[in-house]
Order: sequence, then C-alpha cells, then structure tokens
Amino acid sequence: MERHFERELGALRERLLVMGGLAETMIHKGITALVERDESLVQAVLAHEEEMDLLCIEIDDRCFTLLALKQPMASDLRFLVAAIKINSDLERIGDQAVSIALRSRLLLREAELKPLIDIPRMARLVQDMVRKSLDAFVRRDTELARAVIGSDDQVDSLRDQVFRELLTYMMGDPATIPRALNLILMSRNLERIGDHATNIAEDVIYIVRGVDVRERGDKELRKGLRAPGPRPA
Amino acid sequence: MERHFERELGALRERLLVMGGLAETMIHKGITALVERDESLVQAVLAHEEEMDLLCIEIDDRCFTLLALKQPMASDLRFLVAAIKINSDLERIGDQAVSIALRSRLLLREAELKPLIDIPRMARLVQDMVRKSLDAFVRRDTELARAVIGSDDQVDSLRDQVFRELLTYMMGDPATIPRALNLILMSRNLERIGDHATNIAEDVIYIVRGVDVRERGDKELRKGLRAPGPRPA
Repeated sequence: MERHFERELGALRERLLVMGGLAETMIHKGITALVERDESLVQAVLAHEEEMDLLCIEIDDRCFTLLALKQPMASDLRFLVAAIKINSDLERIGDQAVSIALRSRLLLREAELKPLIDIPRMARLVQDMVRKSLDAFVRRDTELARAVIGSDDQVDSLRDQVFRELLTYMMGDPATIPRALNLILMSRNLERIGDHATNIAEDVIYIVRGVDVRERGDKELRKGLRAPGPRPA
Repeated sequence: MERHFERELGALRERLLVMGGLAETMIHKGITALVERDESLVQAVLAHEEEMDLLCIEIDDRCFTLLALKQPMASDLRFLVAAIKINSDLERIGDQAVSIALRSRLLLREAELKPLIDIPRMARLVQDMVRKSLDAFVRRDTELARAVIGSDDQVDSLRDQVFRELLTYMMGDPATIPRALNLILMSRNLERIGDHATNIAEDVIYIVRGVDVRERGDKELRKGLRAPGPRPA
C-alpha cells in the first residue's frame, strides 16, 4: 500500500511535468508563429489545447483518487493540494497560449508593424518561469521558487516597455492602432502566464515550508510572498 | 465526529460566501470609483485586498484541515477539492478588482473620455455571475451553474462592443489613446472575472454530477463545458 502510494505520487509528478512541458511548447509556438510569420504554428497550438484539456482532467482524477485513499500523511496532503492548484494554473497558461496564437493569426493578416524584440524576450522569460517553477516543485527547491517569484518584476518591466513603445507608434500613426493594440494585449497574455508561474512557485514554498514550520509562520510567509496581482501599466 | 465534520463543512461554505460577497463589493467599488469620479473608493478597494488575502489563507487552512480528517466520503472530498479551486478563483477575482480600481485612479486624473455605459453594464453582469456561481455552489444547483456558463457569451460580446467603440475614438483623435487603452484593459479585467465565475460554475457541475454519474460521463461533461478561455477580440 505504502509503496503503491509512493509510485502513484511519482506518476502524478511526472504527468504535471508533461503538462508543464506542453504549456511551454504552446507559448513558444504561439509567439514563433508571429516572429517567423508561420501560420501553421497557430494550428499546432490549437491542436495542443485538446491534449492539455485531457491532461488536466486526468491529473485532477489522479489527485482525487489519491486523496480518497485513507490518511495520506500531512506532507503528502500538502503535495496533493498543491498539485490540484498547479494543474489549474497550467491549464490556464495553456488558455493564455491559445489566446496568444489567435492574436498571432490576426497579426499575420497585416504587414509587420516593427521587428519584435521585447515580446519574444518576455515570452522566453515566462517560459523559463514556468519550467523553473515546476523544477522547483519536483525538487522541493524553495530557492528556485523564490527566484521565479523574483523574475516577475522583470516581466512587469518588459510589459511596461512594450506598452510605452507601442503607445508611441499609436500616437504617431493611427493606422498602426489595431496592430499595436493586439501586441499590447499579447504582452498582457504573457504577463498572466508569469503570474501563473508565480502562483506555482508560491505553492512550492507552501508545500515545503508546511512540512517543517508551524501554521502561523507559514501563513505569514505566504502572505509576504503573495503575488501583488496584475497592476495597470 | 460526523456532526463536527458537517458543522465544519457548513462553516467553510459560509466563509466562501463571505469571500464571494467581498469580491463583488470590490468589483462594484472599483467601477463606481470611475463612474462617480470618487477616488476614495479606490482606497476602499485596496483596503479590502488585505481582508481578501487573509480570508483566502483561512479558507485554504480549513480545507486542508478537513481533508486531513480521515476518509471524508467521496462527495465531501469532491466538495473540498472544489472549495480549494473556488477559493483561488475568488482571490484572483479580487486581484482583478484591484487592477480595475487602480485603472480608475489613473483615469480620474484626466477628463472623462465619454459617459460610460457598456463597462458598468459589463461590471454588473460579472458581479451577477460571481454571486450566482456561489449560490449554485451552496445550493448544488447545476441549472444555475449552467446559466452562469451561458452568461459568458454576453460578457464576450460586451467586451467586443467596448473594444470597437474605443477603437473608433482612438483612430479619430490620438489624444484619446491613453484613456481609451485604459478602458479597454479594464474591460479585459472584467472579462477575466467572468472567466473565473465560469470556472466556479464548472466546479459546481463537477461536484454535483460526480456524486451520481460514472467517471467517464463526468469527464465528457467537464470537457464539453470547459470554458474556451480568453480569446482575442
């Protein structure tokens, strides 16, 4: 029984990593569709969405089944509760990637507004955050989780940079407005992905600290680390 | 033991309703700040954020404690898993409301662009969705949950209407661009709130149906009902 449970936890961890890898791929393809002006990548992202939804349901079911086994230890319980939340963050990262891909498709119908630099940079940064937050989860590495939370400031500052630059385009030439708006909204999709990775990293700290600190210290830790949420640019 | 557990589940339900009420209040104040040009309401929303964070932690702890009790029945387990997810959706609704309030503050520093009609309408609609999704949760009312999921189309169509109208302003007069952009982003915050309410409604269907249908039917139900996620306008 004990060994079976361990094996099942391992399988759950594994599936979450698969889902994280898929989320990263979706972000990458959604942005590359635009950068390389390759519409076939938009289709690829849409095809991945189905896969993502099925994984999400499978992982929910696994968590539910493991919770239903009698008396998982406190640390396993924390792990399972975190897995449920991480699963839902990953699914929403997938939704954001789909939104990015659809914006790419719209943008591909028009001439390029400008060579893209900051948006691909922002995409690489949030992909890294997603990967690292899951690595932190698997390795129970709170240092790495803290690094992910720290990266969120860089995401916000890139978002502001994108916003300012595109605003200049819009003010200078109204013909650029629709394209610039789509790029601004795309940068907001990337920002949301960074927020989700931050949530995952917070959950990692919660699981790991929960094992060895008292409830109160833990509360304060979480409170102190809680992401400030999206702010207007 | 059994009665104690029931009482604790009741208390959890109660706290989630309090949190839902707070989320609604935050949305309302954030938008009213702009409509009535009353900056004090922005401060009020920021003050509620702290309260929201504490409630979120308290509810997480309650769920965790109840899960740790041995062998909650399958239906209680589903309820607890859903409560964890709903808690996190409500917290993120609070984050969106804070973002709305901060945008109101920025907009209050400038002259009114136009009398607002669609944004307050959108705000009322998503407040309703939040309230109804929680009512559905408390009453295990799948009909009401479905109605919430159905309202999401209305939210999307208001969002598109807001977008088109503000685009016209921007194209006509570049001086309106910064204000119009802020209003567009505010409509996106409202859209996200609608998405979270939809997620809550989906969880309600999951808990209720989970009690009396086989896993497979349930999977298909969830899959069929899964929100399509944010789409570009």
